[in-house]
Amino acid sequence: MAVAELSPSFTKTHLHSSQLSFLSTRLASFRRCAFRPLPRARSATTISCSVAPNQVQAPVAVQAEDPKNKTECFGVFCLTYDLKAEEETKNWKKLINIAVSGAAGMISNHLLFKLASGEVFGPDQPIALKLLGSERSFQALEGVAMELEDSLFPLLREVSISIDPYEVFQDSEWALLIGAKPRGPGMERAGLLDLNGQIFAEQGKALNAVASRNVKVIVVGNPCNTNALICLKNAPNIPAKNFHALTRLDENRAKCQLALKAGVFYDQVSNMTIWGNHSTTQVPDFLNARINGLPVKEVIKDHKWLEEEFTEKVQKRGGVLIEKWGRSSAASTSVSIVDAIRSLVTPTPEGDWFSSGVYTNGNPYGIAEDIVFSMPCRSKGDGDYEFVKGVIFDDYLLKRITKTEAELLAEKRCVAHLTGEGIAFCDLPEDTMLPGEM
Amino acid sequence: MAVAELSPSFTKTHLHSSQLSFLSTRLASFRRCAFRPLPRARSATTISCSVAPNQVQAPVAVQAEDPKNKTECFGVFCLTYDLKAEEETKNWKKLINIAVSGAAGMISNHLLFKLASGEVFGPDQPIALKLLGSERSFQALEGVAMELEDSLFPLLREVSISIDPYEVFQDSEWALLIGAKPRGPGMERAGLLDLNGQIFAEQGKALNAVASRNVKVIVVGNPCNTNALICLKNAPNIPAKNFHALTRLDENRAKCQLALKAGVFYDQVSNMTIWGNHSTTQVPDFLNARINGLPVKEVIKDHKWLEEEFTEKVQKRGGVLIEKWGRSSAASTSVSIVDAIRSLVTPTPEGDWFSSGVYTNGNPYGIAEDIVFSMPCRSKGDGDYEFVKGVIFDDYLLKRITKTEAELLAEKRCVAHLTGEGIAFCDLPEDTMLPGEM
Repeated sequence: MAVAELSPSFTKTHLHSSQLSFLSTRLASFRRCAFRPLPRARSATTISCSVAPNQVQAPVAVQAEDPKNKTECFGVFCLTYDLKAEEETKNWKKLINIAVSGAAGMISNHLLFKLASGEVFGPDQPIALKLLGSERSFQALEGVAMELEDSLFPLLREVSISIDPYEVFQDSEWALLIGAKPRGPGMERAGLLDLNGQIFAEQGKALNAVASRNVKVIVVGNPCNTNALICLKNAPNIPAKNFHALTRLDENRAKCQLALKAGVFYDQVSNMTIWGNHSTTQVPDFLNARINGLPVKEVIKDHKWLEEEFTEKVQKRGGVLIEKWGRSSAASTSVSIVDAIRSLVTPTPEGDWFSSGVYTNGNPYGIAEDIVFSMPCRSKGDGDYEFVKGVIFDDYLLKRITKTEAELLAEKRCVAHLTGEGIAFCDLPEDTMLPGEM
Repeated sequence: MAVAELSPSFTKTHLHSSQLSFLSTRLASFRRCAFRPLPRARSATTISCSVAPNQVQAPVAVQAEDPKNKTECFGVFCLTYDLKAEEETKNWKKLINIAVSGAAGMISNHLLFKLASGEVFGPDQPIALKLLGSERSFQALEGVAMELEDSLFPLLREVSISIDPYEVFQDSEWALLIGAKPRGPGMERAGLLDLNGQIFAEQGKALNAVASRNVKVIVVGNPCNTNALICLKNAPNIPAKNFHALTRLDENRAKCQLALKAGVFYDQVSNMTIWGNHSTTQVPDFLNARINGLPVKEVIKDHKWLEEEFTEKVQKRGGVLIEKWGRSSAASTSVSIVDAIRSLVTPTPEGDWFSSGVYTNGNPYGIAEDIVFSMPCRSKGDGDYEFVKGVIFDDYLLKRITKTEAELLAEKRCVAHLTGEGIAFCDLPEDTMLPGEM
């Protein structure tokens, strides 16, 4: 089906979402790409495909049928076609929009290619990647989009780039918020909370305005728990439980360290919870974790190691990696983001669970409400999750959970001006950034 | 099954390959890892798992059953277990060894995680990664191995790192030769040929000595065609047709540019050949390529563009990317390496083909024998390939093929001292490095 068969209003770049939804029932996907200043006064943002203006080679088919598209839309991700008409693609699911911030950074440089390859959402799920960058990174974003073009991923049907979150988050079903400012020299955690909090407040507002009403948001940029809290507070029309702060890399590292100590392969470690904040107060839980189905403490008899060394090994892993490798752990971070997404879109194996930093309201563990806290979750594979029942606590675990909870409550007071809860009061007890965190 | 049940000779680190083969019929995989100077006098190399000595946590099971392993073998990739005993893994294929050179570089940083994830060799193929680096990059290699640990890939069963190709290539079924020296300021192509040729001569000798007799070798480090020729000439006991020079990124880029020009999605472009050298003399073949099953020239009527602009667009893509992105195209290069491997281990779709730089002996196209030249290939998915029959030529295509052939013959004369064919005579007509090539 060609665009020319649709009414002219459908050929405009800006479609109302109900129109889009209608359109998507007729066309399996509809390309929207432009390289021009947008009418919205708020910013001088551009949305574009990955080809610079001097490289434009107007699509022949579109040129013949819809001259209006010619000037606005170009590039290989900018074509109109009917997936339902092709044998190979007619049984594919409906295209989903995935927004990624910090898209020119190293974590994204791994993640985007994983998303596009189909290994995350499956071989019948076409995707659109919406890349959010900054003015400084805009050229790099074009480079990323060009590399995505050259990779010929069959499932990747649209790539657009922008510095405007209101454009990027339009109809997003996933928002992977990786971009955050790094801490400058001498900056305290409070300063970083404020600096990045402002970014996540704006992104929350943008998600609230334009994203899918059931968008799933994974916050990776640090400090990620409180960034996620700020983000969800600024998006009151999106369910708070849809927001996640990434603690999956911590979970993966904790599993690896337990495996190493026990002398088993890492696939034998299950039921690993990271409790609390993605900071040095995080609590990797060796009380509930299992090795070959047995409680960790029955397999690892060196309880002194568990209590005194294990947590530090997990936390310091990022710092050790920077020493060795000279840069942050972008590859394994992107693997853990993939793991976090997969845990939401595939059913959790019977008896197991995964960790995610989620909104605490309604949690059965007695954690303070109204913060984002990493806890054990299970999913039916529908994108949603539920809290795990039947976890156990002892004094050691409770004491540490209380400490990380106190830190998150302090961080919350520190960003009250960004969550709409009054005047900030910053009394963070100590600096608890993880070594090597970005 | 525990190692203790085997005869003591099997617990040594250095096993004869026939022993290994026998062992692999009993144990699904057998870990070999040590962190110590090797007895071989040739170098002071070490093979190790990814955990530094001060992090060693002796595997409990191994400690109990085989004290000898305790001192040599550690880390999560260094365990003895029986894949056949576990429900999840009992139907897996036999573990394969994959060697990667330049393993601390950016291309490898993408590629290794793709290999480990199972997306290349499939969900039932356990793999061992053997990482080859330099003394300078050894710490970075440890960092890479740590990130691989933290990624918890179920199929990744062994990681070892070394600066000695004789260690890394031992029993390799795949050798992905990515590492090469970049060209220094003012260095001519002839200088680069000599500098890198020496590396590939040594690696060829090492492959000849220790790799699987049916190892498949993909040379990525540039100048890759002549490096591949040097490598195969130094490995007389391995079939010459097992050596490939990577031209798949050129093929992918050519498909993308034709798609852009034709206004179709890139999955509609097929039968794309890159002929000749991975240099600016390469010939992206628009005579035989097809769009939606039709000859390109019937779809793209702008033949002037095809003859005068298309080839340059393909060749300059790497340079444009560097301008945009500030670094080489590591991500899309690694995707094209995956494509190249997949093309050998899955049957080529009916009527289509792929390009690879392969040994010319026996080619049906009249290309000079005894060089490595990119040509159209098909595979039954058994790791092997055959030349495609029925491609057509016209004067334009033949003229360009002759030019790239002349260049490769000149490069061959230039490295005669490295292929055992006498005294080098270097009369390269011009400098034809691709913009942006590493």
